[in-house]
Amino acid sequence: MTEIRQNKATKQWVIYSTARSKRPRDFIRPARERRTLPEYDAHCPFCPGNEAMLPSIISETPAARRGAWQTRIVPNKFPALVPEAGRARIPRGIYLTMEGHGRHEVIIESPRHDCDLSQMTPEEIGVLIETYHQHYVALMKEHENMLVLIFRNHGERAGTSLMHPHSQMIVTGIVPTLVREREERAQRYFDEWGRCVFCEMLEFETNDRSRVVFENESFLGFVPFAAEVPFEVWIMPKKHEADFGSISFGQKTALAEALHHVLGRLHTKLADPDYNYVINSSPQYAAGEPHLHWYVEIRPRLVTPAGFELGTGIRINPSLPESDATFLNQ
Amino acid sequence: MTEIRQNKATKQWVIYSTARSKRPRDFIRPARERRTLPEYDAHCPFCPGNEAMLPSIISETPAARRGAWQTRIVPNKFPALVPEAGRARIPRGIYLTMEGHGRHEVIIESPRHDCDLSQMTPEEIGVLIETYHQHYVALMKEHENMLVLIFRNHGERAGTSLMHPHSQMIVTGIVPTLVREREERAQRYFDEWGRCVFCEMLEFETNDRSRVVFENESFLGFVPFAAEVPFEVWIMPKKHEADFGSISFGQKTALAEALHHVLGRLHTKLADPDYNYVINSSPQYAAGEPHLHWYVEIRPRLVTPAGFELGTGIRINPSLPESDATFLNQ
Repeated sequence: MTEIRQNKATKQWVIYSTARSKRPRDFIRPARERRTLPEYDAHCPFCPGNEAMLPSIISETPAARRGAWQTRIVPNKFPALVPEAGRARIPRGIYLTMEGHGRHEVIIESPRHDCDLSQMTPEEIGVLIETYHQHYVALMKEHENMLVLIFRNHGERAGTSLMHPHSQMIVTGIVPTLVREREERAQRYFDEWGRCVFCEMLEFETNDRSRVVFENESFLGFVPFAAEVPFEVWIMPKKHEADFGSISFGQKTALAEALHHVLGRLHTKLADPDYNYVINSSPQYAAGEPHLHWYVEIRPRLVTPAGFELGTGIRINPSLPESDATFLNQ
Repeated sequence: MTEIRQNKATKQWVIYSTARSKRPRDFIRPARERRTLPEYDAHCPFCPGNEAMLPSIISETPAARRGAWQTRIVPNKFPALVPEAGRARIPRGIYLTMEGHGRHEVIIESPRHDCDLSQMTPEEIGVLIETYHQHYVALMKEHENMLVLIFRNHGERAGTSLMHPHSQMIVTGIVPTLVREREERAQRYFDEWGRCVFCEMLEFETNDRSRVVFENESFLGFVPFAAEVPFEVWIMPKKHEADFGSISFGQKTALAEALHHVLGRLHTKLADPDYNYVINSSPQYAAGEPHLHWYVEIRPRLVTPAGFELGTGIRINPSLPESDATFLNQ
């Protein structure tokens, strides 16, 4: 029997279609489509020696070897948003418009073209998280920055053709409706139950265990009960904290371990799937709220949403969260 | 300068990225990827003579030639939702779940495997709309059906590999949050301004003309001011009506003419792009409301949403609505 589940935080329903259901191994990337990359690509702007292709370098983390770097932050050559644009809303007839105020930067994760995040050591991933954190905190201090989004696109189905390992940061001067709605729903839940809905989920998943794919002292990795896509994984700090910026040194090490494990399992079990991840954190004004909780959301791009999803916002997921978790843990 | 626009109905912001902007002709399907289909495919369950591959036939519209049919409604062989499932919500620990109650049917649009909707005559499209309408009205009469969604997926990027021309209808026993939010926002607009927000947009677009791609006595086709994707087109009835089920005979002919024109232009100018369309109509309980307005939403699948879209819900559109409209009208 097909099952419909509700995401406790977003109230979004998800259809688990047994008639279309696939076995986890049906999602493994076919051998003929697997990627092999060179260590260095002369046409890649992110490879060392090709700095002339970059607009500039904002900052870099030095590597152990003298003169070398481990991570770099650079401006996006084709920024979606720019800091010099205004933030005022401008009426255009009956509509509202504004200039594209914000920032758009790229974090180069390694000098090596072929060193995908899933193949890095926990220590190397730790340096990346440190890079995220320092820049995030600096950007969040600027009052006009409403939201700082850290995200990663891996592979063409995930919206990137540039395979050199990199993440992106986009800063917006607006709070997106999606983020505001997550916040409002969490607030209503808090007003009703006096608890953070994400803490509630953490506690339930920790005890239930059927969807857990990783756990250490600071983080729980699990396939959410109402996962919208096959092999969706949330990595959530056990400590209630609304803002990624509050992450401690010990938590950074623990998060690196979590990402290393989860991305490594996805890579191994599904043969390097395309995916996006985002760090869902609070907008500027809500950073201290008792009802919000930051987390990393990983979404493999294995199915294509179609007209039904467009018209209803409801995803049809051909794979059950418990089967996904079991498969990743095998 | 990059521009950010707000959709007046959904309040969703959309970023128009000039740095990444493309010319309309960059979206034309390359010659090597164009489709050619046979008139008949022995492996296609929707081709005449292959009825043994179908679960059953719910209804059909006869064609002029004796014994032939023009459209057919059949059950989806792999239904996402089924009528025999229950509609009760069931607690599972802290979560909510329910059985997959609903219906999932396919409308075969033509006996010919290669007769895409964009190539049909207005009369043939009229028969399809008549088929939609009759079945929609019948399904909406059943009290437990909360929403009847009519949609079409064209091409692999739009989520279908089955190229025989067909649409789908999914009936749900729940009102999706997306639909409820559209309704609530429209209601708040009505409470404030005393008018339907969609009627307001219709009036503005009709006068402004810069985004109009089609007009007849009953429908306006336009690229919305805050289109989320390149070449998005809305076809909206000029008469205020919340429910697609209220469509009159004359409106059906006029809608067929609108679809014929708009899908034909997309096909000609972009070389048969993949797309989805949906008929956004009211849920069961809201059919008579003064603040809602049904319309057809067409979304070509020319760009891939990535991590930024996942984290914010905001689309980055590399193409301006006015340029899209100009290109389609040329």
